[in-house]
Amino acid sequence: MTEINRQFLLNARPVGEVKLTDLKYHEIPVGELAQGQFLVAIEYLGLEPAMRGWMENRASYLAPLAIGDVMRSFGVGVVVRSLHSDYPEGVRVSGTFGMQTQAITDGKAFPVSIIDSDIDTASYIGVLGITGLTAWCGMEDIGKPQAGETVVVSGAAGATGSIAGQIARLAGARVVGIAGSKEKCDWLTGKLGFAEAVNYRQEDVAARLKQYCPDGIDVYWDNVGGEILDIALEQLAMQARVVICGGISRYNARGPIPGPVNYFNLVFRNALMKGFVVSHYQKLYPQAISWLKEHLLNGDLQHREDILDGFEHTPRALQRLFRGENIGKQLVRI
Amino acid sequence: MTEINRQFLLNARPVGEVKLTDLKYHEIPVGELAQGQFLVAIEYLGLEPAMRGWMENRASYLAPLAIGDVMRSFGVGVVVRSLHSDYPEGVRVSGTFGMQTQAITDGKAFPVSIIDSDIDTASYIGVLGITGLTAWCGMEDIGKPQAGETVVVSGAAGATGSIAGQIARLAGARVVGIAGSKEKCDWLTGKLGFAEAVNYRQEDVAARLKQYCPDGIDVYWDNVGGEILDIALEQLAMQARVVICGGISRYNARGPIPGPVNYFNLVFRNALMKGFVVSHYQKLYPQAISWLKEHLLNGDLQHREDILDGFEHTPRALQRLFRGENIGKQLVRI
Repeated sequence: MTEINRQFLLNARPVGEVKLTDLKYHEIPVGELAQGQFLVAIEYLGLEPAMRGWMENRASYLAPLAIGDVMRSFGVGVVVRSLHSDYPEGVRVSGTFGMQTQAITDGKAFPVSIIDSDIDTASYIGVLGITGLTAWCGMEDIGKPQAGETVVVSGAAGATGSIAGQIARLAGARVVGIAGSKEKCDWLTGKLGFAEAVNYRQEDVAARLKQYCPDGIDVYWDNVGGEILDIALEQLAMQARVVICGGISRYNARGPIPGPVNYFNLVFRNALMKGFVVSHYQKLYPQAISWLKEHLLNGDLQHREDILDGFEHTPRALQRLFRGENIGKQLVRI
Repeated sequence: MTEINRQFLLNARPVGEVKLTDLKYHEIPVGELAQGQFLVAIEYLGLEPAMRGWMENRASYLAPLAIGDVMRSFGVGVVVRSLHSDYPEGVRVSGTFGMQTQAITDGKAFPVSIIDSDIDTASYIGVLGITGLTAWCGMEDIGKPQAGETVVVSGAAGATGSIAGQIARLAGARVVGIAGSKEKCDWLTGKLGFAEAVNYRQEDVAARLKQYCPDGIDVYWDNVGGEILDIALEQLAMQARVVICGGISRYNARGPIPGPVNYFNLVFRNALMKGFVVSHYQKLYPQAISWLKEHLLNGDLQHREDILDGFEHTPRALQRLFRGENIGKQLVRI
């Protein structure tokens, strides 16, 4: 019986919200291994807002994706056949294997890491994957939260936001999260140690931030862009740092997206705004991983994965991100 | 005969372009000196785009100005009577004396500096005043131009822009200026050592910058905001630094001013954007003044003052800034 690899291919550049039909289900036989290759049976895929930009080729920092290509995705899995001595059968690995159930690779086309057995597999996509690295590197290089400072995180119940906020808390800062449901807000204040949380769908964000940040915002971590970015810029403290990590409110917009009207407040506040793509911080990864692992194992760092079961539901899992349905890292379990 | 002090008072908060009637001419007798005070006969006033914000009280970093107050202005002059031993009769001084012909002060209400005789008086308002300090501190702390980098300056023929560009050139960078007339552009490339200049009123700025900055913009010094900021953000090189010094295109706008649509390019370019008000860099002033003076005296640093004669023309001099009529620092000679 021929083994089948199930895939999602890029079918169309998204316009407006990502549609289920922007990805196309496809089956091909699993190929034969050449010398130096190994076959990974993927167990989890990690979904990320950045995928929207990859589908559109907006992200100039990555190789372009053509229509018909296997969609780019991070995943973790187990080596099931191997002609590569560094990746023997049975080891668990993480890497950008693509949106598919099986991947043949050589450990060179993209970095493949062997994952430890003392941490659960799903964590390797989230808190110890791109998500945690993004949170740690952005805080380390840009946010630099200090004890006693006030840090505001938007998209705070998302994968990166929830870790970024906790990193700031562990640095001694008072952390205020912005999220889109009562359940998310309760999670932030109840489990993650956020001082306050604002439900942007129900509350007046500007008024609440004024109340929760009476001395202004020292660090603003932005995952959303749009109106909330503008509100935060209005309320910066002197010498504030604005970390532009994402802009999920922008990704699905049609037509031109307004810029932050209040950017000029950077002048009055002597404030810094910096964007980043985590891959530029590869030198920091070992330090980041070691910090994240330590705090994960000692229980300081809470995380949550939002798991959808079944490879066939991957496009739906992607939509969940843009609808704010996920709490924590959105995964698909294959 | 009673000595008369001529003043301009804030008469109205500007709406749209600054009108001549937003300032009101006023005469009062020059008062008597108390112990510890001295009287300055002001020789030059320095006009700055920031005055627009001061008139509106937009600038939260300064004490508010009430309608009827003497308008805030930097100036240089000579001490003509003194009951203060540090400021004897005959010394030349610079300080925020206000928009008036005579000022009585005590050297404490605001800093008053005694100026050297080896440099012409007008320079103390421009290249050795707020203007030069702004250019130097912004480049030192934010722009950090490196040899071989490409630096773009908007408002390049203005007081600050022309110095900022030359500081970058002296650091070994290739400097491209954006200005609003052929005369200004010729001055930049002919006298100031700019590699290229773009006349934004005549040329396609995006196309010209692409041509002049084929590897992207490493440092963008923004004095103007608006569309030109967006064009520069689009063309940033990796690790670029955007210095937000001013936004003259914004100051006269009525109603909401769009923000920079391309701010999100900061993410793809790992780029930094930082604003500042020079008064936050007071610690750097001695170093800045020493650098500026050295390069001024050895002829490395060109500067130009655009002088309007007659105190009564001060409101007109202010308008010239917003109409882009000045080349170099706009002064009024009393």
